[in-house]
Amino acid sequence: MIKKVVVTPWEVKGNIDYDKLIKEFGVSKLDEELLKRIKKHTKELHFFLRRNIFFAHRDLKFVLDEYEKGNKFFLYTGRAPSGPVHLGHLTVWYFTKWLQDKFGVELWFQFPDEEKFLFKQGLTFEESQKWLYENMLDVIAVGFDPKKTHFLIDTQHANLMYKEAVKVAKSITFSTVKSAFGLTDSSNIGAIFYTSMQAVPAFLPSVIKKKNIPCLIPHAIDQDTHFRVTRDALPKLGYYKPASIQGRFLPGLGGMSADGKMSSSAMNTAILSTDDAKIVKNKINKYAFSGGQTTVEEHREKGGNPDVDVSYQWLTFFEEDDFKLTKIYQDYKSGKLLSGELKAILIEKLNKFLAEHQKRREKAKNQIDKFIY
Amino acid sequence: MIKKVVVTPWEVKGNIDYDKLIKEFGVSKLDEELLKRIKKHTKELHFFLRRNIFFAHRDLKFVLDEYEKGNKFFLYTGRAPSGPVHLGHLTVWYFTKWLQDKFGVELWFQFPDEEKFLFKQGLTFEESQKWLYENMLDVIAVGFDPKKTHFLIDTQHANLMYKEAVKVAKSITFSTVKSAFGLTDSSNIGAIFYTSMQAVPAFLPSVIKKKNIPCLIPHAIDQDTHFRVTRDALPKLGYYKPASIQGRFLPGLGGMSADGKMSSSAMNTAILSTDDAKIVKNKINKYAFSGGQTTVEEHREKGGNPDVDVSYQWLTFFEEDDFKLTKIYQDYKSGKLLSGELKAILIEKLNKFLAEHQKRREKAKNQIDKFIY
Repeated sequence: MIKKVVVTPWEVKGNIDYDKLIKEFGVSKLDEELLKRIKKHTKELHFFLRRNIFFAHRDLKFVLDEYEKGNKFFLYTGRAPSGPVHLGHLTVWYFTKWLQDKFGVELWFQFPDEEKFLFKQGLTFEESQKWLYENMLDVIAVGFDPKKTHFLIDTQHANLMYKEAVKVAKSITFSTVKSAFGLTDSSNIGAIFYTSMQAVPAFLPSVIKKKNIPCLIPHAIDQDTHFRVTRDALPKLGYYKPASIQGRFLPGLGGMSADGKMSSSAMNTAILSTDDAKIVKNKINKYAFSGGQTTVEEHREKGGNPDVDVSYQWLTFFEEDDFKLTKIYQDYKSGKLLSGELKAILIEKLNKFLAEHQKRREKAKNQIDKFIY
Repeated sequence: MIKKVVVTPWEVKGNIDYDKLIKEFGVSKLDEELLKRIKKHTKELHFFLRRNIFFAHRDLKFVLDEYEKGNKFFLYTGRAPSGPVHLGHLTVWYFTKWLQDKFGVELWFQFPDEEKFLFKQGLTFEESQKWLYENMLDVIAVGFDPKKTHFLIDTQHANLMYKEAVKVAKSITFSTVKSAFGLTDSSNIGAIFYTSMQAVPAFLPSVIKKKNIPCLIPHAIDQDTHFRVTRDALPKLGYYKPASIQGRFLPGLGGMSADGKMSSSAMNTAILSTDDAKIVKNKINKYAFSGGQTTVEEHREKGGNPDVDVSYQWLTFFEEDDFKLTKIYQDYKSGKLLSGELKAILIEKLNKFLAEHQKRREKAKNQIDKFIY
């Protein structure tokens, strides 16, 4: 059975060859030399970097050069509200928090509350506003520094953003967005304009502070298309091209080739930030694709396959301790660890993580004002 | 010599057959019955109405029906800043002021300060901001009631407007703007989106006041295309289609077939709101297309042709007194009035009008804040 591999801002599916993706997208590998330079400033390397989960970049060298000259970059990431937050989103944001803490930099977090409204037929503007609120709680729960973190909400910060967006828009033709995003003559004119708004946070801090500040965008690699268009447009306005650090996808419960990356719209493939311990346990026990054998006897004899096992894959995103993770890998491969036991390890790990996240998420309800720019 | 007739939001040229335009655009004639209904409320008819200068409409009956039921309409017009204001703009605005005064209604005046920036290659955003200020002075000088007049500046009121514009945009495809405005794949994505912003003032008062209020747009008929798109989009959002009352064009100094409608970008064809008495005199004496004969003797004998004479055409827009105007028409046609004398009448009339406008324009510099919503 041949599965097609798809990686666009709207769909990620198939067994992805990340080395091939680096070539196709024209991004650079995050190599040993760059990791060493990062470590010089952060003292330790985040396990996402040690494990190659963030594996590619654009212009990271430039950002570090400027940083070392005293010109600190700022971080930019975002969330288009249209549904609940899941573990895939959280992994990128927790990594972003680590970058903020270690480099002591500002984070501009965009909530393009019109994006999904414009791209999804059935979604009303009111629904997107409900999700805006819910999603902000999750972002705050990550623990970003409120003094250094600024939420930009497209429709609420339009006085700041629209003016800059039209400057970007003037240099982008319909032909460009047609080929970049697959839009057509039947696309609505808001969807066609939208990428200009997504470009704005990449240079808005430079506008506000009246000096050119480098921008670093941590994101899953499927979003590269948006920022490729942004990178072409910004130098025409006199700003730096935004740099990026790009991550792999957290697979859905069924695994990459069945489910693609985790998605909130396919509920049985995702674990949500608000799922309670019982739901997490049930979802993983019921749906997490297993690399184990069909009987205990066979498993003990032949061992499991951690490379396709979703529980193991997820642990690479959630078990920080390399030693523990290696042991799990070996024990599962040798057959010492059964699939049910592996799932139990993951369930415990996730529920501990989510309990803490949910506690902070509850507190976040009183903190929203501190974060909105 | 056959001259092509062109009427689009960007170009108006040729000897226009307004009856044909009514059919082509699918608008309705402003007939005696409607004029009577207007007069019932305004007591007298503005000379633009008596003279058929405002000659067509969409849904004006509906607006008057609602008005008579106690549901007052609001007026909406605007100015895209990109250059100086000329007499052609002023005539529409002074007529709008008359409507405001007589019906006692609100006016929402849009300054789409991004429009011309997006559509004109050479115009910078900073230049459009300079013209925004200059143009606001002219609008205030018209004498609108500051308590009932609200300026909407697209980039400064984007917090209010962008959110509503994306709702409009969702129901307009690229195909639609392509055929309505002649945009192509090489058009920039800001220009493609723009018509959504122009639609917003037609229902923003309804959003703010949380009830459906009829909107009446006084404009020169070439702008009909924009509002045709708006009229299709608004009922999908639950708002009334905006009504309109549509005027003829004030010709440029060379006349309709040579210059088309008056335009600030062709300086020798326009009289600007800031032109002083000497400039006005020179421009008219030098450039105003004359319907007179080549020699005084010939003129006395054959008479002039007021129907092609620009000075006479302009007097239909500036001489309120029907009796005086008729006399000028007859005297010119009979040869009693010479071209130079006709020009002198116009020059005096315009300079008196402009001197008063310019005095108020000077005072307007301290009044801008009162008008900005």
